[in-house]
Amino acid sequence: MADDLPDQPGPRRMTQVFTDGMAGETPGVPLSYEVLESAALDALSPSAYDYVAGGAGSESTVDRNREAFGEYRLLPRMLRGVGERDLSTTVCGTELNHPVMLAPVGVQSIIHEGAERATARAASELDLGMVASSAASTTLEDIHAELGETPGWFQLYWSSDHELAESFVDRATEAGYEALVVTLDTPMLAWRERDMQRAYLPFLDRDGVANYFADPTFQSRVDGDVADNKRAAVEEFLEVFSDPTLTWDDFEWLCEYSDLPVVPKGVLHPGDAERAVEAGAAGVVVSNHGGRQVDGAVAAVEQLPAVVDAVGDEVDVLFDSGIRRGADALKALALGADAVLLGRPYVYGLALDGADGVREVCENFLADLDLGLGLLGCDDVDDLDESVLAG
Amino acid sequence: MADDLPDQPGPRRMTQVFTDGMAGETPGVPLSYEVLESAALDALSPSAYDYVAGGAGSESTVDRNREAFGEYRLLPRMLRGVGERDLSTTVCGTELNHPVMLAPVGVQSIIHEGAERATARAASELDLGMVASSAASTTLEDIHAELGETPGWFQLYWSSDHELAESFVDRATEAGYEALVVTLDTPMLAWRERDMQRAYLPFLDRDGVANYFADPTFQSRVDGDVADNKRAAVEEFLEVFSDPTLTWDDFEWLCEYSDLPVVPKGVLHPGDAERAVEAGAAGVVVSNHGGRQVDGAVAAVEQLPAVVDAVGDEVDVLFDSGIRRGADALKALALGADAVLLGRPYVYGLALDGADGVREVCENFLADLDLGLGLLGCDDVDDLDESVLAG
Amino acid sequence: MADDLPDQPGPRRMTQVFTDGMAGETPGVPLSYEVLESAALDALSPSAYDYVAGGAGSESTVDRNREAFGEYRLLPRMLRGVGERDLSTTVCGTELNHPVMLAPVGVQSIIHEGAERATARAASELDLGMVASSAASTTLEDIHAELGETPGWFQLYWSSDHELAESFVDRATEAGYEALVVTLDTPMLAWRERDMQRAYLPFLDRDGVANYFADPTFQSRVDGDVADNKRAAVEEFLEVFSDPTLTWDDFEWLCEYSDLPVVPKGVLHPGDAERAVEAGAAGVVVSNHGGRQVDGAVAAVEQLPAVVDAVGDEVDVLFDSGIRRGADALKALALGADAVLLGRPYVYGLALDGADGVREVCENFLADLDLGLGLLGCDDVDDLDESVLAG
Amino acid sequence: MADDLPDQPGPRRMTQVFTDGMAGETPGVPLSYEVLESAALDALSPSAYDYVAGGAGSESTVDRNREAFGEYRLLPRMLRGVGERDLSTTVCGTELNHPVMLAPVGVQSIIHEGAERATARAASELDLGMVASSAASTTLEDIHAELGETPGWFQLYWSSDHELAESFVDRATEAGYEALVVTLDTPMLAWRERDMQRAYLPFLDRDGVANYFADPTFQSRVDGDVADNKRAAVEEFLEVFSDPTLTWDDFEWLCEYSDLPVVPKGVLHPGDAERAVEAGAAGVVVSNHGGRQVDGAVAAVEQLPAVVDAVGDEVDVLFDSGIRRGADALKALALGADAVLLGRPYVYGLALDGADGVREVCENFLADLDLGLGLLGCDDVDDLDESVLAG
Repeated sequence: MADDLPDQPGPRRMTQVFTDGMAGETPGVPLSYEVLESAALDALSPSAYDYVAGGAGSESTVDRNREAFGEYRLLPRMLRGVGERDLSTTVCGTELNHPVMLAPVGVQSIIHEGAERATARAASELDLGMVASSAASTTLEDIHAELGETPGWFQLYWSSDHELAESFVDRATEAGYEALVVTLDTPMLAWRERDMQRAYLPFLDRDGVANYFADPTFQSRVDGDVADNKRAAVEEFLEVFSDPTLTWDDFEWLCEYSDLPVVPKGVLHPGDAERAVEAGAAGVVVSNHGGRQVDGAVAAVEQLPAVVDAVGDEVDVLFDSGIRRGADALKALALGADAVLLGRPYVYGLALDGADGVREVCENFLADLDLGLGLLGCDDVDDLDESVLAG
Repeated sequence: MADDLPDQPGPRRMTQVFTDGMAGETPGVPLSYEVLESAALDALSPSAYDYVAGGAGSESTVDRNREAFGEYRLLPRMLRGVGERDLSTTVCGTELNHPVMLAPVGVQSIIHEGAERATARAASELDLGMVASSAASTTLEDIHAELGETPGWFQLYWSSDHELAESFVDRATEAGYEALVVTLDTPMLAWRERDMQRAYLPFLDRDGVANYFADPTFQSRVDGDVADNKRAAVEEFLEVFSDPTLTWDDFEWLCEYSDLPVVPKGVLHPGDAERAVEAGAAGVVVSNHGGRQVDGAVAAVEQLPAVVDAVGDEVDVLFDSGIRRGADALKALALGADAVLLGRPYVYGLALDGADGVREVCENFLADLDLGLGLLGCDDVDDLDESVLAG
Repeated sequence: MADDLPDQPGPRRMTQVFTDGMAGETPGVPLSYEVLESAALDALSPSAYDYVAGGAGSESTVDRNREAFGEYRLLPRMLRGVGERDLSTTVCGTELNHPVMLAPVGVQSIIHEGAERATARAASELDLGMVASSAASTTLEDIHAELGETPGWFQLYWSSDHELAESFVDRATEAGYEALVVTLDTPMLAWRERDMQRAYLPFLDRDGVANYFADPTFQSRVDGDVADNKRAAVEEFLEVFSDPTLTWDDFEWLCEYSDLPVVPKGVLHPGDAERAVEAGAAGVVVSNHGGRQVDGAVAAVEQLPAVVDAVGDEVDVLFDSGIRRGADALKALALGADAVLLGRPYVYGLALDGADGVREVCENFLADLDLGLGLLGCDDVDDLDESVLAG
Repeated sequence: MADDLPDQPGPRRMTQVFTDGMAGETPGVPLSYEVLESAALDALSPSAYDYVAGGAGSESTVDRNREAFGEYRLLPRMLRGVGERDLSTTVCGTELNHPVMLAPVGVQSIIHEGAERATARAASELDLGMVASSAASTTLEDIHAELGETPGWFQLYWSSDHELAESFVDRATEAGYEALVVTLDTPMLAWRERDMQRAYLPFLDRDGVANYFADPTFQSRVDGDVADNKRAAVEEFLEVFSDPTLTWDDFEWLCEYSDLPVVPKGVLHPGDAERAVEAGAAGVVVSNHGGRQVDGAVAAVEQLPAVVDAVGDEVDVLFDSGIRRGADALKALALGADAVLLGRPYVYGLALDGADGVREVCENFLADLDLGLGLLGCDDVDDLDESVLAG
């Protein structure tokens, strides 16, 4: 085995694993998603695990997201010369080395003390794009500093205090984020039985409120200093966190207001995708929030083709909800997504080993994706289309 | 957290749970239906549990009811301004605060000593409509007294002694019930293997016969005083409980006789729905009796669209059989039901904590429903239709 | 409860169970088929259990038979006056009190010492038709004597010694059987992994050969007296048991030869059904031998409609393979069968309690069927048709 | 039981098993595939077991291969005279006694010390065709010597050193192989999580490299003697093992170069099958490498009909991936395959008992196939077509 690792993510990671293996070391972070999830269950507090793993209501949407991927099947082609695979792509104006970004996941301080900073460090090491969450335990400024040149997008929970929302947009622009992902599917917290059963809401312990507590607009809502009035500040946060009264007119206003491209997340209906594009969206993220908002909802991947049909010619379409392995990403890309968001897997990596855990999970994921692309007979992610799907 | 709870059922219940949580208390009645059911199994006598949880024959219909709900999937819409959701509706002339009523469940004395009175008290506290059962362990008059201003309907098992049936109708009218739900699907007791295996029939222990023993018409069938001849009275009850010879002509007669709106329960075939409406029904309840009558039967929800197509323009359609969570109710409403009946869940709440248990289960159910409605992008239950269903 | 049991099988059995229950007795033979099967597993020798419960190869056909029933769903009708249900019917000229016969099951001596005689006694007590097997452990003459006036049919494994086959036909006719069921699907023993794994073939222990050892034609094939040469006789039996060279011309010859109506068993393809009727068959039994012959075969019930379409206007169609409960029988009858054969359930009853066990299983089965018929809104088995099936 | 075993594989094996049984012996190698697999798990080292049993990624393709077989169902015909079944066929010019060959499986030294030699000996005893793997632990010359007159084909992993590939082709031709199976679906090793988790690659222990180490062209790539430089030789092997840059032009060149018929393996898309035939292929093997290459891929059997439609009139079509029992083979043959490759089952037999284990598994498989063919009503494998499939 050469000391110099190969260029492509697949052979590179395989070489590394077998080289380590000859030195007596095997991967510390499980390669199997199911084993990874189960190891994370052991590593996390029960509340934190349930918060991450759980979903709305019966969690049927979480399950359905996975099941629906199983219903699409890849149809590989042979002898197409796949010695070098090009995984790079450009999405909503951002150049990405891989058709994958880390999904916005909040309150990472409940997962690992390194929190979002550790995640951003791993992203930066792999030059893997990351979407930072409004509900991060680290400020968006700090996260971006950790990312450095690696592409970062900012995810916005649109506060019922619209000045606060504006402030978040301004800060994200200032910090250097390249796009604004606006979450549409969370006008209210959903009915998540696991969290309710434990009466557990991480914000109550002041996790996931860094962006708020650091914000002058937010601070002005709290009597006295936020640091001295944490309980009141948390209550204020819960008060302003989301706005169920929002309409497409508000979204249109935001598209005009923002200098960054605006990408709504949580779109499932093609009519909503069309409305978003009409309002000025630079792309859409097809997502059902990983099954965390509407119990009994359609799998996100089932709606992907219809959304691509509706707006895929005009804007980029990202996909989120249910991506666990390379095959899932390949299917989503084949169905017309331009990139996918990876969520729970990297969070479990974070739980097991901080930044190193995130990096290892992502290296495995990208290796799997790279090899799968080649084995499908394709040498460029931009060429993937329905012709590699059976039936 | 404010001391004043919010108005809407979802935010109200969430606020309550998290406020209690900060005081160190977590919900006593499990939020997850599956955990609730399993807890009830521990709380109840084996016979009582089997009586409630069981179904006809192989119980394939019980299972199919659940499975069929899984085949419908919700398709949420975004940014539609859902700050206030209107859950109220009017069904067969009765004004309801929620598109939900407590299903008629008999013999509740085997579940909890508070029996139907406890259930009615919880219903009254939530102003949640209730359908009282002919086979209650408490008289219909007592149940109605407990309900107070909360809407109550009376469910009729049509006795083979037609004078007795008339007497029940008269008493229900007198007591202040607003509609008469006539169960069509139980002309005979079904083959319930769990109960037969235990040779358990709650009536034999004089549960579920309060309405009969208190009725002058019934009393006149028993030699001497009912209280002194309980065994004979029970045998008499079994003799007259149902009438397998009934036809639609009898039903037509009842519609003419009754001053209350008559709502047949157990309709699955659209032709039966049409016949019912022709005969004077004010609505129909699509139901397979929770899988307790015909083993191998179609899921009730599968028949809902056809029944709505057949009679939905003329009368209100209620749905029963398989409702466990808010998502189930939303699907049934989207398929055209005007309200749903909730059964096993509240009975398990009753098992665990009497009236408080029923109330807690119902609060959770309504919270889940309220939030789900909003997250679907809908602010009025009356607006739900097939457009929120995928595929 | 009256001492006189009601007439109809459903109310009769229920009354009996609850009356016994009040005296402190619960049913000794499990009502649930799954529990019954599991109890039989404990009661039988492992070899005998595997012989009965097993199937060909992976046993996928056994499973598929059950699964396919689940795909049909009953659609009950209401208020049709079902106070008295007529379960009687006439099949291939035989008048039956129920649309059910006991399926031919051989070698019952491995199940219970009473063997086929016990089964016949139970059949006779219930006046339930029985098909006696060629491979019985009791002679066909003894079985018929036990049946008395209860209808009996004889099942023929067509020996490669055609004179022996003729002798069986002659003896069955002489003994008073009313029809000849010719099994077509067993020209060779199938690859049954359970039996092969144990190297277990009941015939090797001289079970299931009574009809052969008692037959003069068979005896003449064995040197000396059969009783003195049992090993040789068994080898001779295996030699002549079946004939894989048979064709439809042979079947045509049999129809001419036999004075009894000839009913081929094992028909799955409508073309084979047509050929059978053309050759003179008085009916056909749709069956895949309970999944014991062809691994990976279509469920018998899936082929029933096509066979009924092909020949149902000309001859009676019986159904076998997968009947476990009343609902299965109702579905088969609704799909056009004129009667069904009940197999494994009664054998498990035999295992648990001899003739009494068979009777109890059958009483339960008929009760379930009778009540199910009424709850479907039907008062005569001859009226069942596809209108009681959904979809 | 006669000492002379019957001719046909089914009756022959059954007779043997029951004869052994009477002598107190039962089959040592489990007949049930599931039990066999589980026994092999105990017999093998965890790494070896995982290497054989595992698949790509989530192993969804391994599972789907099996599931898809379950979706096809056999529809047997009766009374067609099946006393003698002809299992012989000719595939790509090779005369075979059975429509089955042993699939190419490499590195058998990790399974049993007898390795490919033991497998070849068993194949030779049964006159069952075998495809020898490039990655064998025994040279292709030694394997062919063991096969003797039994048909052997050679499977080629096309090395990135094209002279080495030529050398393999030359050696296979010289050794007497009758066809060249070129594996198309492995231009790169796939992401196999089990092996990666253990950092286990059998080649690193110098298993599966016999053909390479013995090859002059390969030897010339290693400094000094291969035996003295094993580590370097293994690294060289990994370097040249496969060639992801290959295209159909290379394949066309090979067809011209080779004197043996060339049969590409790993074809799933009918377009690839057409391209292969156009390039000179003598047949194609429909395969997804037993689910070991592309996670989430279509089941191989699902693609079989389309490939047969595309090229079945011009060349022979073999099937591989998911064959476990006779019923699977019958389905594949009915869907148009001319022969099937048997993989994991015989490897588990090898694990349990070397050559004897392979022979016993294959005898069972062929017995099951032979009986199944007859019970379908067919006496010649060449006559199997879609008419024996339901639906």
